[in-house]
Amino acid sequence: MKRLIDVAMKREEADLVLKNARIVNVFTGELEEGDVAIADGRIAGIGSYSAKKEEDMSGKILAPGFIDTHMHIESSMMTPSHFGKAIVPYGTTTAVADPHEIANVLGVKGIDFMIKEAESVPVDFRFMLPSCVPATPFEHNGAVIDGALTAEVIGRDDIFGLGEFMNAPGVVFADGDVLTKLESATSARKVVDGHYPSCSPDELNAYSGAGIKTDHECIDTLDALAKIKRGMYIQMREGTATRNLRDLMPIVNKNTLRRCLFCTDDKQVEDLLARGHIDNNIKIAIECGLTPIEAITIATLNAAECYDMTDRGAIAPGRIADIVVIGSFEEFNIEKVFKRGKLVAEGGKALFDAATLEDGSVKDTVHMKEMTLDDVRLPLKSGRVNVMRLLPKNVVTERVTRNVKVKDGYFEYDRDSDISKIVVAERHKNTGNIGIGLVEGYGIKGGAMALSVAHDSHNIIAIGDNDADIVAAVNEIRRVGGGMTAVSGGRVYGTLELPIAGLMSDRGIDYILETTKRLTSYATSELKVADGIEPFMSLSFLSLVVIPELKINDVGLFDYSSFSHIDVEATE
Amino acid sequence: MKRLIDVAMKREEADLVLKNARIVNVFTGELEEGDVAIADGRIAGIGSYSAKKEEDMSGKILAPGFIDTHMHIESSMMTPSHFGKAIVPYGTTTAVADPHEIANVLGVKGIDFMIKEAESVPVDFRFMLPSCVPATPFEHNGAVIDGALTAEVIGRDDIFGLGEFMNAPGVVFADGDVLTKLESATSARKVVDGHYPSCSPDELNAYSGAGIKTDHECIDTLDALAKIKRGMYIQMREGTATRNLRDLMPIVNKNTLRRCLFCTDDKQVEDLLARGHIDNNIKIAIECGLTPIEAITIATLNAAECYDMTDRGAIAPGRIADIVVIGSFEEFNIEKVFKRGKLVAEGGKALFDAATLEDGSVKDTVHMKEMTLDDVRLPLKSGRVNVMRLLPKNVVTERVTRNVKVKDGYFEYDRDSDISKIVVAERHKNTGNIGIGLVEGYGIKGGAMALSVAHDSHNIIAIGDNDADIVAAVNEIRRVGGGMTAVSGGRVYGTLELPIAGLMSDRGIDYILETTKRLTSYATSELKVADGIEPFMSLSFLSLVVIPELKINDVGLFDYSSFSHIDVEATE
Repeated sequence: MKRLIDVAMKREEADLVLKNARIVNVFTGELEEGDVAIADGRIAGIGSYSAKKEEDMSGKILAPGFIDTHMHIESSMMTPSHFGKAIVPYGTTTAVADPHEIANVLGVKGIDFMIKEAESVPVDFRFMLPSCVPATPFEHNGAVIDGALTAEVIGRDDIFGLGEFMNAPGVVFADGDVLTKLESATSARKVVDGHYPSCSPDELNAYSGAGIKTDHECIDTLDALAKIKRGMYIQMREGTATRNLRDLMPIVNKNTLRRCLFCTDDKQVEDLLARGHIDNNIKIAIECGLTPIEAITIATLNAAECYDMTDRGAIAPGRIADIVVIGSFEEFNIEKVFKRGKLVAEGGKALFDAATLEDGSVKDTVHMKEMTLDDVRLPLKSGRVNVMRLLPKNVVTERVTRNVKVKDGYFEYDRDSDISKIVVAERHKNTGNIGIGLVEGYGIKGGAMALSVAHDSHNIIAIGDNDADIVAAVNEIRRVGGGMTAVSGGRVYGTLELPIAGLMSDRGIDYILETTKRLTSYATSELKVADGIEPFMSLSFLSLVVIPELKINDVGLFDYSSFSHIDVEATE
Repeated sequence: MKRLIDVAMKREEADLVLKNARIVNVFTGELEEGDVAIADGRIAGIGSYSAKKEEDMSGKILAPGFIDTHMHIESSMMTPSHFGKAIVPYGTTTAVADPHEIANVLGVKGIDFMIKEAESVPVDFRFMLPSCVPATPFEHNGAVIDGALTAEVIGRDDIFGLGEFMNAPGVVFADGDVLTKLESATSARKVVDGHYPSCSPDELNAYSGAGIKTDHECIDTLDALAKIKRGMYIQMREGTATRNLRDLMPIVNKNTLRRCLFCTDDKQVEDLLARGHIDNNIKIAIECGLTPIEAITIATLNAAECYDMTDRGAIAPGRIADIVVIGSFEEFNIEKVFKRGKLVAEGGKALFDAATLEDGSVKDTVHMKEMTLDDVRLPLKSGRVNVMRLLPKNVVTERVTRNVKVKDGYFEYDRDSDISKIVVAERHKNTGNIGIGLVEGYGIKGGAMALSVAHDSHNIIAIGDNDADIVAAVNEIRRVGGGMTAVSGGRVYGTLELPIAGLMSDRGIDYILETTKRLTSYATSELKVADGIEPFMSLSFLSLVVIPELKINDVGLFDYSSFSHIDVEATE
């Protein structure tokens, strides 16, 4: 503090002065001309300053570092360090990360890995404690974080808050374990993030009244405004699969702006490189009519205020010197990024290396016996079956009834039909559980695909038009300790290895991007996965039982409407 | 939390439902029609609710309870409980109080008394730890709160933050003890309030960069906007002596509104009853062009956000049910006030009693020998003297040089001149210190006045046109253990007794109001105190050495420009 004061008062020299800049002032909504003096990684003064180390910023705009208020690093398949390296060039210097996926595999040990792994890169990740591990009582995942454990962990300094509370029914029905989680977070004065896609007015009262502060699941203005009225912050999302910002922009006005935030939720590598990160949210908001400074205010000050990060979110004295240098508002071209006063990205490239933290305890997480052909046979009495029907470009499915061939009491593949077999094999605790079901609309021919990223329990999910390839694909994932693969005629075409919890690569962005592209292209062109189906990602959501209509996990088919497991054999 | 959820979901009945109201929504800036369900003192739901206990609010407007963000209870001469009773009818349900005056007499013991005394009334006082006790190194007050003690106390749950940092020079010169105070507050994550009436751009960088979050001393838009630009919150003040709101209103726009707060700072009883409390700030803001909801937002949500009081500041689920019932925005007539869901005021009257907490340890704080005539003689060599010249309706003085009569080596009163004698007698530690000076423009004739409220050290200050009455007045204050008095011809006309720290009455508002009025009227009409001089209050500021130009404390005359003591004897 002394140094900052001494630099502000010009008794000492700043470490760096950014000269002659146009500085975004999120408090007044104006551009201010002047110099920014930086000392010890913080902003010491704005005005007229000099130092030995100066950088001329004539014509450039300085904005505070952007903040992503809700995201899952695992969705990128990169570790935090690699992910940090990937997003810094887009101006994101702080991200509130919910390590929900790794927690479902490894529990608190996985979260600890993420926290430690993130330390090496100049992005401040703030890690939430996932609130719903497992996601439902119908899951067999790798770890449980219940109320008691939450109460034990939530007060930790390196735990930023309680992650998205997807178990909304548990909240509105005042479930005891849920209340323990919420009350322990509240009494530790930690933010609780929300996730409640559609709710009645009474449910919204109950949910917001329980202290849940944010929501990123709004897809229309009605829902978003209802939540703002009850005091919630709305995280306007631009992810890879879910892009809601344009639809939500009409909610932003002079009164509500302070309650609006940006988030990405889930970003895959290809999309990240194509569209950018929070800068993409800002650009879209500007396109939709906000002034550039309003959009930047949402990405900075609002996020800092919602999450009580008073040390950032503005270019102002005492705050951390996270600064994004923008060429012009018209192009919104990010030329440089400073993190704690150090230049960390320039011209779209990070100026530092990322290296995955070596930690054996987060590897070798696939614990299951080698799969055999017998494991995946589907016994049927009649040929009348419940089938998951995929809808193009969607993660919800339909439940339909179909007639299939039966031979010797087992399901028989039919080359002329569009019915594939899907299996989910438990892989955390060697229970031997394998759920088997049937899918229409996926279109796979002549092979199988499998992956160990399968929401939210991350068992191994596989689909194919023959048992041999399904078994081979699952065994390949088992062999490499997690990943995604495509198999045809018993031959593995290729595998993206995800050794960390079966979710993340220990290599960088290039490996993930290239391998994913290669596998995806093979699935589409050679295995004939249907148009409008994103081969691996759509598969990874078929085990997410908290969304409609018919899904599958390691216990079997799950019907959303009755919220219970059902047989493949149709009863009606 | 369970009860709130159950009531929101209509599985249980609310304690009270306010039906058919128009509800101020500070998040959207709109009036929302509906019912407010209250349970366990919190808001459980907004919408459509029923209960056995309902109150029809048709046509009425419900606003969140108002928050005063900076004030000194002692200025009212009431204890917290009586003060709370006085402000609740005006809709103030939370007040951030800086017990600076009692701390100067009794230190932390005095603060503890205030905290405890406040508990009995339905107003949430949030007590700051005063940052500048004593106010300057030139003071002899009753207690010292230095950096070490601050570090020890600031983390306490019942200490809300660090009070107004008047020692701005100490901040910008990075004084060691000052830094200890600031750093301990920052690391305890407590808000630090500011007080920096005029500063250069560099000084503002240093001051705001040190983590000082608010300022209530802005008297013009230029200063206020400069501070908002650096991230500070501006407390727009309407006190008894200082009223800055109208002057500051031009700073409020759609961008800056969220950085604006209301405060009263110092409110005397008569003014409180005449103008009201924070409702007065709101009314003035509306007069100046804000919408009623914008003005209410400043008084509620903004204050809650600045001070991280997430449990209030809005009528929203989960928040404390502090609700102000307003008849119409046009009249802004407050009909009822609910605190934690209980009706606590109606038709301008509090519905509860206040009783001063009995605590002997905050009484008998006047420790000095009986004063004699010899104590107040002013030895002079020449008749050329430095004189404090009062300016009507102002707390600053001028330093002037005058010729006075000298007899036998001592100052001699002159019936035809306007020069009075002023004395400040140390009363905390029996040091025997008595500062003696001369004042022009006060106009007192035929008597003397004295009081033990004398900023900031609260020694006994007295003024008169003859030594006998001055001595009698000081001894009367000594006799009653603190208060204010008027004396003429050796006879005490009347005394307002302030037994608590010599600052506050243990009786209620009526006693203070009537006695003050009687004494003031006597001072003006009988003792001929000059027009434009508020007899007692202007006296109490003549010992405040941190404002220009010539002041007096127990050591003697103090010159603001040289920031040092000077002799009465003029050297030039």
